[in-house]
Amino acid sequence: MSCTVGKVIRCRAAVAWEAGKPLVIEEVEVAPPQAMEVRVKILFTALCHTDVYFWEAKGQTPVFPRIFGHEASGIVESVGEGVTELKPGDHVLPVFTGECKDCRHCKSEESNLCDLLRINTDRGVMLNDGQSRFSINGKPIYHFVGTSTFSEYTVIHVGCLAKINPAAPLDKVCILSCGVSTGLGATLNVAKPAKGSTVAIFGLGAVGLSAAEGARIAGASRIIGVDLNPKRFHEAKKFGVTDFLNPKDYDKPVQEVIAEMTDGGVDRSVECTGNIHAMISAFECVHDGWGVAVLVGVPSKDDAFKSHPMNFLNERTLKGTFFGNYKPRTDLPSVVEMYMRKELELEKFITHEVTLSNINKAFDYMLKGESLRCIIRMD
Amino acid sequence: MSCTVGKVIRCRAAVAWEAGKPLVIEEVEVAPPQAMEVRVKILFTALCHTDVYFWEAKGQTPVFPRIFGHEASGIVESVGEGVTELKPGDHVLPVFTGECKDCRHCKSEESNLCDLLRINTDRGVMLNDGQSRFSINGKPIYHFVGTSTFSEYTVIHVGCLAKINPAAPLDKVCILSCGVSTGLGATLNVAKPAKGSTVAIFGLGAVGLSAAEGARIAGASRIIGVDLNPKRFHEAKKFGVTDFLNPKDYDKPVQEVIAEMTDGGVDRSVECTGNIHAMISAFECVHDGWGVAVLVGVPSKDDAFKSHPMNFLNERTLKGTFFGNYKPRTDLPSVVEMYMRKELELEKFITHEVTLSNINKAFDYMLKGESLRCIIRMD
Ligand SMILES: NC(=O)c1ccc[n+]([C@@H]2O[C@H](COP(=O)([O-])OP(=O)(O)OC[C@H]3O[C@@H](n4cnc5c(N)ncnc54)[C@H](O)[C@@H]3O)[C@@H](O)[C@H]2O)c1
Ligand SMILES: NC(=O)c1ccc[n+]([C@@H]2O[C@H](COP(=O)([O-])OP(=O)(O)OC[C@H]3O[C@@H](n4cnc5c(N)ncnc54)[C@H](O)[C@@H]3O)[C@@H](O)[C@H]2O)c1
Ligand SMILES: [Zn+2]
Ligand SMILES: [Zn+2]
Ligand SMILES: [Zn+2]
Ligand SMILES: [Zn+2]
Repeated sequence: MSCTVGKVIRCRAAVAWEAGKPLVIEEVEVAPPQAMEVRVKILFTALCHTDVYFWEAKGQTPVFPRIFGHEASGIVESVGEGVTELKPGDHVLPVFTGECKDCRHCKSEESNLCDLLRINTDRGVMLNDGQSRFSINGKPIYHFVGTSTFSEYTVIHVGCLAKINPAAPLDKVCILSCGVSTGLGATLNVAKPAKGSTVAIFGLGAVGLSAAEGARIAGASRIIGVDLNPKRFHEAKKFGVTDFLNPKDYDKPVQEVIAEMTDGGVDRSVECTGNIHAMISAFECVHDGWGVAVLVGVPSKDDAFKSHPMNFLNERTLKGTFFGNYKPRTDLPSVVEMYMRKELELEKFITHEVTLSNINKAFDYMLKGESLRCIIRMD
Repeated sequence: MSCTVGKVIRCRAAVAWEAGKPLVIEEVEVAPPQAMEVRVKILFTALCHTDVYFWEAKGQTPVFPRIFGHEASGIVESVGEGVTELKPGDHVLPVFTGECKDCRHCKSEESNLCDLLRINTDRGVMLNDGQSRFSINGKPIYHFVGTSTFSEYTVIHVGCLAKINPAAPLDKVCILSCGVSTGLGATLNVAKPAKGSTVAIFGLGAVGLSAAEGARIAGASRIIGVDLNPKRFHEAKKFGVTDFLNPKDYDKPVQEVIAEMTDGGVDRSVECTGNIHAMISAFECVHDGWGVAVLVGVPSKDDAFKSHPMNFLNERTLKGTFFGNYKPRTDLPSVVEMYMRKELELEKFITHEVTLSNINKAFDYMLKGESLRCIIRMD
């Protein structure tokens, strides 16, 4: 047993003191895990748009000081009361949304929207006692989506940790914590293209490229990538995207262009932009009779999805997904195995790597649109 | 072989000479079937809203004089060149939409929107030669949706005829030609409620009650019927509907009322009204995580389906269906068998019966909202 069990751990963390200001590497105190909590030594973490979005905190109730980070991998240091599924030394992926295994959603085969542990971006504290486990000189530093992985140690609810194969390289599988699983699952679990089918992907960021990776794995014959930013097309070739469309290049709606290219529409589409026009195009570009469109992008508060009901009556299906419909604890271990069997390629998503002390560089890469995923090494 | 083969048949038919005017029983001439066509002796036909809608011809290009009718049962009299699947004496159900067995849709397991024989309400002639097979004194009388069953004999494309069990009572199974199969299939083939689930049905006309019958057959634990017309509730009890909701009785959207009744929403909903507000409510009343809503009602030209994309992202699915996703030739025979095994109850749909000479009474019953289905006997 580690000599830190039951004690406060002092370690380094990247603290966001204020919205939009560079993170500061600080020594923080991390309290021991309480009931149903686990303290995890983070080895690798990656930066995702969601971190940047809540760090910028535009139009949000700001929760600062805060420790961001939710894509990561680590090793269990100690566990709190009632935790039986994990023990010190287990390799884990933290996930921003959880699985209590007890609510109606967890018991349903179809849903991963756990009532207890569903993502909550406003909460900066742990569920058990409404307090933070992080502090500096007794002053609390808030959590982010229950993970706060920009710290050498963090405390996480057991329901938000997937126990994975200890042989899996943690510097690669850390990116399965969020974006890559979201896009991959949107295609494999929700759109479910048959071998040989045509798939359109709207938005070629990390999520869209993961959706394309899912289409490649499913054996799609044609993967049409749609993005407003032509810079994305070069990278996308590595992900099996066969055709590129920039809606700006046409004077008609892109769904019409796709219908012409594909004799009536694609078999499946996956929207990974968050843009309402792309959502409507993604739906209207699927073939009648059997087409399925899947929404992944997070829309604005006032957006409205709008389409003529005949588009549905002609036997099109529209679905949405959250975290690719993966149940974090139940399903993520098998996604890690897909990588171990070399079916899923993760290396091509990792464009940059920095150490924790240089974490602000990861923000720069992302803000400039240079990186897909930048890995942050904690040591 | 019948002595009529290859000859023009003179028989009685109910002819609509003008929009909205009572039908007139006339002696018509029915030409022999051409290539891929079949001449059918109609024994029973029923009246559906779609007949009334195109007979009223409001806001349409009128096609008159015309022989309406598309829900029916009959016996093959003779077949044209190239017809190998049917022979004189076979019992058949005509269907307003067809199955060529050769196009992409017919070859897809998911679609029933045949490219060749998809419903066409504007066409009043046969595909083979662009001519009508009906005439009076050499003047053509137009067809309706390829069936024109308000005639003792009619000519139909072989792709629009389902060959059924000759033991099935034709005066009952005739209603499987359209509305009943549409609602039944919407539930059984598209919404697919699991045993024990909750289902909301919007609109309790013949189509909605068939959807409710599907929910009853699937073993739904609770079937919530929604209609603006409280008269529909009495009849609906026979169809296993357990709860009744009139949106007019509440000062909040009916989807909110349903969410409160069902701890967050129903598992499945089926919309059978054609009203855009009902379509939106039907979608928004399903539970997040697993809810599936199915649109059946035919909307107006200028309607727009509108909902916040988060309703999709919270893992709700919206689908539409045409003819309950049944492929007419491949699937209807097995629906007849469901009735033969007494799983499906048809008698409760049949509220009236008249002879061909009294066909205008069937229109009156429907226009007054008194009938669910009125059977018209041809003899
Ligand atoms: N549902 C979930 O569980 C979940 C999880 C993670 C991320 N997301 C969401 O997925 C979306 C994509 O995430 P990302 O990290 O890949 O973002 P990203 O910004 O890297 O990529 C989005 C891409 O979409 C393109 N785009 C924007 N509008 C477009 C339009 N109208 N047509 C075509 N392309 C357009 C942009 O040019 C960009 O390349 C975001 O909305 C994010 O919030 C959802
Ligand atoms: N998709 C197909 O293949 C197919 C086939 C046949 C019929 N249909 C369509 O199905 C629909 C129903 O057909 P039907 O013959 O049962 O019609 P119907 O007129 O007998 O029944 C419709 C019912 O909906 C109710 N209604 C209307 N607006 C409502 C609202 N906002 N909320 C709740 N209830 C409302 C009416 O009071 C009525 O009882 C029609 O739109 C018809 O065109 C579709
Ligand atoms: Zn749960
Ligand atoms: Zn993320
Ligand atoms: Zn066909
Ligand atoms: Zn009909």
